[in-house]
Amino acid sequence: MTRRAGIDVGGTKCLGVVLDEGGEIVAEHRLPTPKGPDAIIDTLADLVGHLGDVDSLGVGVPGLVTRNGVLKAAPNLIVITDFQVGALLSVRIGFPVEVDNDATCAAAAEWKVGAARGASDVVLVTLGTGIGGGIIASGALVRGANGFTGEIGHMVIDPDGPPCPCGRRGCWERYASGSGLARLAREAAEAKRLRRVVELAGGDPMDVRGEHVHDAAAAGDEEALRVVDEFGHWVALGLSNLTNVLDPEILVLGGGLAGSADLFLPPIRSWFGRLLYSAELRPHPRVEFATTGEYAGAIGAALLTDVH
Amino acid sequence: MTRRAGIDVGGTKCLGVVLDEGGEIVAEHRLPTPKGPDAIIDTLADLVGHLGDVDSLGVGVPGLVTRNGVLKAAPNLIVITDFQVGALLSVRIGFPVEVDNDATCAAAAEWKVGAARGASDVVLVTLGTGIGGGIIASGALVRGANGFTGEIGHMVIDPDGPPCPCGRRGCWERYASGSGLARLAREAAEAKRLRRVVELAGGDPMDVRGEHVHDAAAAGDEEALRVVDEFGHWVALGLSNLTNVLDPEILVLGGGLAGSADLFLPPIRSWFGRLLYSAELRPHPRVEFATTGEYAGAIGAALLTDVH
Repeated sequence: MTRRAGIDVGGTKCLGVVLDEGGEIVAEHRLPTPKGPDAIIDTLADLVGHLGDVDSLGVGVPGLVTRNGVLKAAPNLIVITDFQVGALLSVRIGFPVEVDNDATCAAAAEWKVGAARGASDVVLVTLGTGIGGGIIASGALVRGANGFTGEIGHMVIDPDGPPCPCGRRGCWERYASGSGLARLAREAAEAKRLRRVVELAGGDPMDVRGEHVHDAAAAGDEEALRVVDEFGHWVALGLSNLTNVLDPEILVLGGGLAGSADLFLPPIRSWFGRLLYSAELRPHPRVEFATTGEYAGAIGAALLTDVH
Repeated sequence: MTRRAGIDVGGTKCLGVVLDEGGEIVAEHRLPTPKGPDAIIDTLADLVGHLGDVDSLGVGVPGLVTRNGVLKAAPNLIVITDFQVGALLSVRIGFPVEVDNDATCAAAAEWKVGAARGASDVVLVTLGTGIGGGIIASGALVRGANGFTGEIGHMVIDPDGPPCPCGRRGCWERYASGSGLARLAREAAEAKRLRRVVELAGGDPMDVRGEHVHDAAAAGDEEALRVVDEFGHWVALGLSNLTNVLDPEILVLGGGLAGSADLFLPPIRSWFGRLLYSAELRPHPRVEFATTGEYAGAIGAALLTDVH
């Protein structure tokens, strides 16, 4: 039986899985993500050892990954350019390794075994600290000229918006990611529009985080629900832009916020219906949260051999 | 020898061409675009007759075209929904007809015989009265779930921007199309930043059009050149967003403004280099103006049988 391994390299941990032929997880193992390129390669090789005999390996990493498995930059993971993850790990373990961006891996997972199974035109959006993306068009993964498709968190949606660490202003992830939610919440708190949430955060508007808004909104706090609605508007605005470009059948939302689908999905869907271009003339794409959860990246990494 | 016919249905005229096997135009004919669906079908059939014996026919139309050749809406052409262009014309002329959006046709033309020949990942952007688009990814035309890819003129790039006839605010084509240029120019004229251009337009800032800016800028007028630079910024902002999503090797600019490449290309390229995400880590996509000119839509329509 074929055993395909996949590893998702995250900011704090590396999660490895082995999939059987049906795409079910038959083994898994975690190790902390170390600092530095050599230590990362050591950890990945170690993790492969823990996963047992495998027939293939894919690795998902956060950052710009070339079509040859070179990590060009991953500001949240490591201070390095041109980290030859694929080549170095292949030499170490003795067989070829596929490497791609973690959001691209998540897209592969949701397309093959998750919410978008059976669809030909899919956009996956990871709503985490930032926003990542992966694209399937006409039944194939879209990788682009360099492998850099899906950097959708840095679509500019307001040239006069808040500054982004990328050096520009008004990138989508300043509004519609986990850190975007926190920013919207702090703005509301400073404007005294989030009294209960500020209490939850200990009294200082600058300490308000996304979780505080989430908890207060889930408990029915009207002011927190208004921030969630505002957040839903910003998520939907970007989804609408992506629909204009790609006309997907389904948009799948993954990342850390996917765990709070019950709270976030209704306002996102409502705003999406209102913001969609030519809404009255087209079938509306479905907007769903991912079903592969924290395993998305690792499952998708294991499936890279199928989709590359 | 195979003779492939293509017709581009424009707001004022229908342009038909016949291509030989090498993609060269061996016949062409034009007829005025009439009003109403029946008259349009009559005109298209008539035009086919003028083109002589042909082996295939493709038609490009402005608007949302389904994958089955149904024009869902074309506000600048005809007041109708669900115009069965492909089926009606096929019945009339006795052989199958491929139909697609005119910008998608232009993308096919530039990809197969124009500026993007040989590239696998291409975004075509038509800068006309509005903005249209067509996408090639991994060496295939991207049509989307419904056939509606490339409606990139309605990417929202400023939610508080000027209203768009589509019902939303701040769509890219409010800034970066021919009408966007005219709007930027009128704003500058009202702010008394375009004295020479207002003179050219007859003295009233509200009469300023894109051509006046173009002519003054081409003659070296500093104030007009500043508006051209501002326009270049807006074009580049959208191109940068599209690059984030699709990572193309080349972005091709077509449409009416393509005739003024000498004036517009330098500021567009300059701003694109500054706005590109992770510019220092990637090969920069080329930004070129289209080479098929007014024939783009008709040539691409003739090539639809190859790319669909």
